[in-house]
Amino acid sequence: MPLPYRWLTSLMVRYNGMNILIDAGEGTQIAMKKKGWSPKPIDVICFTHFHADHISGLPGLLLYMGNSDRTEPLLMVGPKGLERVVAGLRAIVPELPFEIVYRELTGTEEEIDFPKDSDYRDLHIHAFRVNHNMLCYGYSIMLDRIGQFDVEKAISLGIPKQSWSHLQKGEQVTGDSGTVFTPDMVLGAPRKGLKVTYTTDTRPCEAIVRNAEGSDLFICEGMYGEPDKIEKAKEHKHMTFTEAAELARKADVKELWLTHFSPSLIRPEDFMDGVRKIFP
Amino acid sequence: MPLPYRWLTSLMVRYNGMNILIDAGEGTQIAMKKKGWSPKPIDVICFTHFHADHISGLPGLLLYMGNSDRTEPLLMVGPKGLERVVAGLRAIVPELPFEIVYRELTGTEEEIDFPKDSDYRDLHIHAFRVNHNMLCYGYSIMLDRIGQFDVEKAISLGIPKQSWSHLQKGEQVTGDSGTVFTPDMVLGAPRKGLKVTYTTDTRPCEAIVRNAEGSDLFICEGMYGEPDKIEKAKEHKHMTFTEAAELARKADVKELWLTHFSPSLIRPEDFMDGVRKIFP
Repeated sequence: MPLPYRWLTSLMVRYNGMNILIDAGEGTQIAMKKKGWSPKPIDVICFTHFHADHISGLPGLLLYMGNSDRTEPLLMVGPKGLERVVAGLRAIVPELPFEIVYRELTGTEEEIDFPKDSDYRDLHIHAFRVNHNMLCYGYSIMLDRIGQFDVEKAISLGIPKQSWSHLQKGEQVTGDSGTVFTPDMVLGAPRKGLKVTYTTDTRPCEAIVRNAEGSDLFICEGMYGEPDKIEKAKEHKHMTFTEAAELARKADVKELWLTHFSPSLIRPEDFMDGVRKIFP
Repeated sequence: MPLPYRWLTSLMVRYNGMNILIDAGEGTQIAMKKKGWSPKPIDVICFTHFHADHISGLPGLLLYMGNSDRTEPLLMVGPKGLERVVAGLRAIVPELPFEIVYRELTGTEEEIDFPKDSDYRDLHIHAFRVNHNMLCYGYSIMLDRIGQFDVEKAISLGIPKQSWSHLQKGEQVTGDSGTVFTPDMVLGAPRKGLKVTYTTDTRPCEAIVRNAEGSDLFICEGMYGEPDKIEKAKEHKHMTFTEAAELARKADVKELWLTHFSPSLIRPEDFMDGVRKIFP
């Protein structure tokens, strides 16, 4: 529930001009503007599920994007039923100057990739089904990082310097003599990239541990701070802070952010000692 | 457009336990909570029209009311198409523990009354069509005020004191001897009641002047503060501050509130001198 002092849970990821938003509850566009960001350049909106607190801000976002004269298509990703739900909401935003491309998720895990010739080809979204009282997905957003460029090898192969940046971008180049040089000739093994995993509205489950594994940042719901609210958490298919901390520990993530608090949870910091005993 | 420092235009009227909300844009439930009010006891929601900034907060309101275990029916009033639009939005709030009763407006003016045996039988909502780029209505909310109770007359007629309050409520009573007493025997002519008129998203028009006439409070849109934005106002079917002030003057209202400002209108108070020259 949105509160005067607490916006609904949502995540904006920006990389190389690419903007990905996960979830858009009521007021998300206001929170975004407060941050100094504009909804206009959002390229992808992923929905975890269709409860109102995760999608009711969509009509306002679409209206804003339309009024900003956006023309680029918008990719929407979400559980099966996405197009029907969005069509319903569009009763109040019927006209838009841009196309919406729908990607409905049906599998237990699905991959969303971007065009190989784009500036964000090294970004990947991985959706994984979690365990809520309706079809719900978590998302990992991963940024590849290519191997180190071997300068000595490039010189010894006689690759002209002006071709080096193309090889670093993963493109093959042809030398003056017609020789073809490929990235694998000069790049080492891929290095560890960046990984952010986001999951809300779910009981703890194996798919979360597996998909969050090694994340640099793990954003996880913590509906209840009190460990003794575990029965309530089970009933409503949410989790407690300590359950989220257990997931972070098992998935060996670098950092955990807790979010999606119950309105009754006024002082989440009161429960952090218990959390840090499990995941520092 | 909702902004971090400005909620969308909406009005809540409360009388004798009856709660009427006009318009519910994105964030209205947050603004309401900030005020210390709950959306749970809303009995009537009136919509001026179906642009997203006037209705996109409805799913969140309904969800809140449903989660509060409300069971009383909710009356919704709005232009023709209301039920279709709300059905669309309910794609994200499919289950509700209370009934929604729809009243679709089709005439140029329509009256919404309440049951004669309710505590708010003296409240009336009057809807009137205005002039926007889609079907749009303004609303007057009126509270009747009965005539003064004539104590001397009641005594001379021999009406028992315990019946007086019933007569004041407009009910007839029967004395011990079987004599029937009716309110008109002891009440003077109806006195001036209270009237609030609310209209947004419209060009100035005769229906506004006529319906706002004599209002104690006239809440009117003022999209543009600058009088030279009149052409823009005409194009988008809104009005300037001075146009709203003219309406207030013509309708001879007691007080005018300007609202529904353009996001580009940062300091509305800068234009108040011009407004006060027309309507103090």
